[in-house]
Amino acid sequence: MGQSKKLLAGVIRNDRQMADARTIRYYDSSPHERAAQDQRPVEAQPPIGELRLDPLVNEWVAMAAHRQSRIFLPPKELCPLCPTTGDLLTEIPESDYEVVVFDNRSPSLRAPIGDWALPDQVGPDTDTGTAAGKCEVICFTAEHGNSFKDLSEQRVRVLLEAWIDRTEELSKESYIQHIAPFENRGEEIGVTISHPHGQIYAYSYLPPRVEKMLAAATTYKKQTNKILFDEVVAREIKDKVRIVAQNDRWIAFVPFAARYPFEIHVAPRNPVADLTGLTEQDRAAYAPIALEVMKRLDGVFGVEMAYIAAWHQAPVRVGRDVLRLHWQITSVRRAPGKLKYLAGSESAMGAFIMDVQPEQSAAQLREVIL
Amino acid sequence: MGQSKKLLAGVIRNDRQMADARTIRYYDSSPHERAAQDQRPVEAQPPIGELRLDPLVNEWVAMAAHRQSRIFLPPKELCPLCPTTGDLLTEIPESDYEVVVFDNRSPSLRAPIGDWALPDQVGPDTDTGTAAGKCEVICFTAEHGNSFKDLSEQRVRVLLEAWIDRTEELSKESYIQHIAPFENRGEEIGVTISHPHGQIYAYSYLPPRVEKMLAAATTYKKQTNKILFDEVVAREIKDKVRIVAQNDRWIAFVPFAARYPFEIHVAPRNPVADLTGLTEQDRAAYAPIALEVMKRLDGVFGVEMAYIAAWHQAPVRVGRDVLRLHWQITSVRRAPGKLKYLAGSESAMGAFIMDVQPEQSAAQLREVIL
Repeated sequence: MGQSKKLLAGVIRNDRQMADARTIRYYDSSPHERAAQDQRPVEAQPPIGELRLDPLVNEWVAMAAHRQSRIFLPPKELCPLCPTTGDLLTEIPESDYEVVVFDNRSPSLRAPIGDWALPDQVGPDTDTGTAAGKCEVICFTAEHGNSFKDLSEQRVRVLLEAWIDRTEELSKESYIQHIAPFENRGEEIGVTISHPHGQIYAYSYLPPRVEKMLAAATTYKKQTNKILFDEVVAREIKDKVRIVAQNDRWIAFVPFAARYPFEIHVAPRNPVADLTGLTEQDRAAYAPIALEVMKRLDGVFGVEMAYIAAWHQAPVRVGRDVLRLHWQITSVRRAPGKLKYLAGSESAMGAFIMDVQPEQSAAQLREVIL
Repeated sequence: MGQSKKLLAGVIRNDRQMADARTIRYYDSSPHERAAQDQRPVEAQPPIGELRLDPLVNEWVAMAAHRQSRIFLPPKELCPLCPTTGDLLTEIPESDYEVVVFDNRSPSLRAPIGDWALPDQVGPDTDTGTAAGKCEVICFTAEHGNSFKDLSEQRVRVLLEAWIDRTEELSKESYIQHIAPFENRGEEIGVTISHPHGQIYAYSYLPPRVEKMLAAATTYKKQTNKILFDEVVAREIKDKVRIVAQNDRWIAFVPFAARYPFEIHVAPRNPVADLTGLTEQDRAAYAPIALEVMKRLDGVFGVEMAYIAAWHQAPVRVGRDVLRLHWQITSVRRAPGKLKYLAGSESAMGAFIMDVQPEQSAAQLREVIL
């Protein structure tokens, strides 16, 4: 029935089919039998959505109207990301797990059927596309009440291997252009299920922000013959004042022109295009800095911070020589009772106004006693 | 002491100085003496902020750390935007007013001293700039509890003349590149003062979204010799299904690739670059459609909708032949108890996912009984 695959650091992946034919992948730090069957009745899969061009800025918008009815803050005893126990039949048929990745039940983007191509972008005359891509859910732990920062180093290593494995596999799909593993945390930013988990979006187009990063890095390369992100990291190492944490393989800093009250970029010292390029040493050294950064973030105000933590990778087919892997963590929390909102200037004009000096937030993060 | 200026539709502007030397401008539909003195003690003005380049996307971020301590949801009896009455000394010295515009007390952008130029954008080696520009507050009414939609048609006409006047005057400043009047409404999106008011941001750089609109319109003109926004409006008129309201001078529609659950664009049928280009007939016909649109928006769920309503204008010095004036209203409210949040895909990747079909939200808006 299932497939098994050996990854680095002794991590083993076992695949199973869910009742509705979606795939679930178990990533374990030691051999486990993962044979439990999904006992739930089969539900119809939602249809694939549309890609519509916003001609005013020449950007694709994915229309996924079926997502309006998705599950919203279920109580713990009905959590669909907990293991299956007794009468509670969840997304994960096993009674326990380490890390699992499964296809999203309400995906914004889906695998296309047959040949697929993105329409040309020519203003309001552009054809509508189908919202091709893949959306996966990645659960970090079976423990409902925990957070990323509560994971063991070993668990973070398994998680990293899962992210790497998904990046490698999704990169092989001909319609995939970009892969973004991210975690949203906190009801303040709309998280609908509080179980520790992330998502993996694999886009069939370059996300607008990635497209802009590619343009900036390409221009910089032409002008200076240097790699933009490497120079950014070099400046942070030289300036010192915005560094939050570091070890011999990774560095974490508040960027010079941070957009959010708390924003941390985490980058490997030896630059790579995407997660698959990380060496064994890089991989082993990620968990300590990732956990330190997340603990510092929650320590600033002594509250669980709402955040978005997203891996920025080079796209699958372009820009692999100018874009670099890094992990961007942004939080809208500017004080215990206050959030930063994106209003007229940020949202309508795209012009960010920052109320917190990056050097100040970096100092606050450094001063947290762990 | 003050200056007086006559605008169209009998609107009169009277200028006064506030105690700390900021300017307040009264816009009235009939002659009023506006001689009241600001009785408050003089407070030091905050220093000008920094412009820092985010090299990864080549965008300016304005650093305004002094804004951290700005006033936060004051109770009605301490509202700084109400008229001055008795012991309550507010931003408006008069005991009543129609529309006023005054310099923001905690501006993100300020007038520069002496010569000023934007640094070149060359990655992490870019110099830091000063956050040049102007931030003004515009109050729509002295009535604290009201909203834009409760204004009279005459008041909206005064408001429109004030926006036009500010655009005209701010355009003359050599360091101003773009002018954006906008209104943020609703605590859900971080509005810190509930009195009906908007803001006018005059930027010394092209806001990133405007820069992107300019690039899209310029490319489209080269490819087709047509004006992008005019073709967008033509498509909406042809498709009919997303039109929300119209009169003989204006049209309001949900855009084909809307990004927000409720999004309405309002455009004059005879295109102009910015507010100053509107004819007398356009100006007279704006209030009815503006009020209708806002009433429809609040009518959909029978709740006051959080929204951002922003005027998109052509920049002051570039792109005036390819960009068009229009008013974009966006709401994150997707259901009575639910908001749309910008999380991993939207915020980190810039890739919008829409849960509501634009044709459906347009129908909901049309079906509201006014």
